[in-house]
This record gives sequence, C-alpha cells and structure tokens, in this order.
Amino acid sequence: MIIRPAGRADRDAVWDVLEPVLREGATYTYPRDISKADALAAWMGADRETLVAEEDGKIIGTYYLRANQPGGGSHVANCGFVTDRAAGRRGVARRMCAHSLELARERGFLAMQYNFVIATNTHAIRLWESFGFETVGRLPDVFNHPEAGFVDALVMYRRL
Amino acid sequence: MIIRPAGRADRDAVWDVLEPVLREGATYTYPRDISKADALAAWMGADRETLVAEEDGKIIGTYYLRANQPGGGSHVANCGFVTDRAAGRRGVARRMCAHSLELARERGFLAMQYNFVIATNTHAIRLWESFGFETVGRLPDVFNHPEAGFVDALVMYRRL
Repeated sequence: MIIRPAGRADRDAVWDVLEPVLREGATYTYPRDISKADALAAWMGADRETLVAEEDGKIIGTYYLRANQPGGGSHVANCGFVTDRAAGRRGVARRMCAHSLELARERGFLAMQYNFVIATNTHAIRLWESFGFETVGRLPDVFNHPEAGFVDALVMYRRL
Repeated sequence: MIIRPAGRADRDAVWDVLEPVLREGATYTYPRDISKADALAAWMGADRETLVAEEDGKIIGTYYLRANQPGGGSHVANCGFVTDRAAGRRGVARRMCAHSLELARERGFLAMQYNFVIATNTHAIRLWESFGFETVGRLPDVFNHPEAGFVDALVMYRRL
C-alpha cells in the first residue's frame, strides 16, 4: 500500500470510496444526497491536501489534511478519513492516520483536532485513541444518525 | 435598538463593525489581514442569515445564524456576534444573543453551539453562561492570541 497525493485523475476513484459512506450518513455530516461535484469540491478543495491510499493500482482509502481554523487557529490541523468498505479491517485507516500525523508535523502544525467523531463510531474512536488522541469535548445529541437517532459527537485532540 | 436582517446596503456598515475586531484578532479566527470582500463573503454568506442591530440609524452590532453542520448535524445552530466598540457594554451583545435564540427556535433548530470561544474572552463567556450555555469542550492551546500567546478555546452549547 502506498499513500500519495491525490490528483485530478483520481477523482472518480475517490468518489467511489466516498459515495457509499456519504450516502449511508452514519459517520459524516455531508448531506446524504450530496452530488459528486459538491462532495469532491469539499473533499479535494483548495483549502487542503488530499491523499489516497493505493494498493495494486486500486484506491482503497482517502484522507485530507487542512488547517482546522484560519488565522489564530491555523497551527492546529484537521483530517478526515474514508476507507473503501471492501478494504475494511485491513489497517488502511491506521496507515492513513499515521501518515497524516507525520505530514501534519512536516507542515509545521502543532496539534491535530477531529471536530465531530460520531459517538457510535466506536471502531474509529478506539483507533484514534490508540494514536494518543484524547476526547476534549462531548457534544450532546448533535448528530442525527440514520439508525440510532440523535447521538453525541466527540471532539478529539492530540499534540504533535 | 432594533434587530433586523442585513441587506446589501448594510455591507459598509457591517464591515465598519467587523473590521477593528477582525484586525485585532483576539476573538475570532479570521486572518487578521482578511480583505473586506472575503470577510463579508463569509459573514454575510449564502449559508446563513445575517442580522444587524441598529440604533438611531447606526449599525452597532451584527450577528449570523446558520446550521453548525450540514446533513446529520443540521439541527444544531451556530452564531457569531460582533458589537461596535463604541457601543460596548450597553447590552448590544445580550440583545443579539436573546434574538438569536428566538430566531433559532423559530427556524426549528434544537440546540445552539459555539465552536470556538476564546478562553480569554471572559466577558463573552459570562454572557453565554447567563443564557444557559454550558462548556462541553475545552480545546487546549488552539488559539494564538496576539497578546496572550497560545490559549484554550471553549465549545459552548445549550438546547433550545
């Protein structure tokens, strides 16, 4: 598996990874009916670096790195990760997280913050905790989960 | 004092209120050198309702109301408030906050969240607490204050 910057030629493959996750609406706040163009405009926007995880020529995951806030908050990074479902449980998210922490350090960020980790996404929470992230905020009922209804979201944070 | 929707004709007056606060960079994360056009594109953007507080024909404050997240997070509102410095301590922010909570209820929001209340902004924190906001997260050193250096920011929340 290699992790490399995403280019325009990867747009279709990135969307193939994103679409089922955004359509399900269980882990991200994108509108579930978001268009491909709008989703890629956000995920691959000019305000961030977008990367892909590739194995045997196939894109099996994607993540972005950006400043979580402009101005006085721009020393804190933020990432979003999506893994191809068919590639699940093979450590793709773990590899991307490790990569993102190194890249963020290289870019001079001093900390990493995830703003909205859905409390039902226990697999992700355990993974982020294994990388030293701590829960610094718990937002009550802020996410309307398609199956579980209103659930909390966590703010997770670690220094770099 | 009346509080009413901002229109295009208010752009100069809204900027007059915003500019000194954004240039100081002590309470918001906008880049301190942000242009008027970029600041107004954000503050009066299509994703939100922007209002002004007017007294004797003069704009003395402005706030916006928007969904804090799209999709599964769109039942939670978010606001930003800026008061004209010359009008400080006359209850403008309090009036705008009360107005925003009513407007948010009217729009069907179920809760209000402030994502990034700078810990040194004690006047604002006390004001939000007086309206029933609670601190649900404390983000360590996420704001580079122009005088105080790295300081925490609070996530504040209340149901509607």
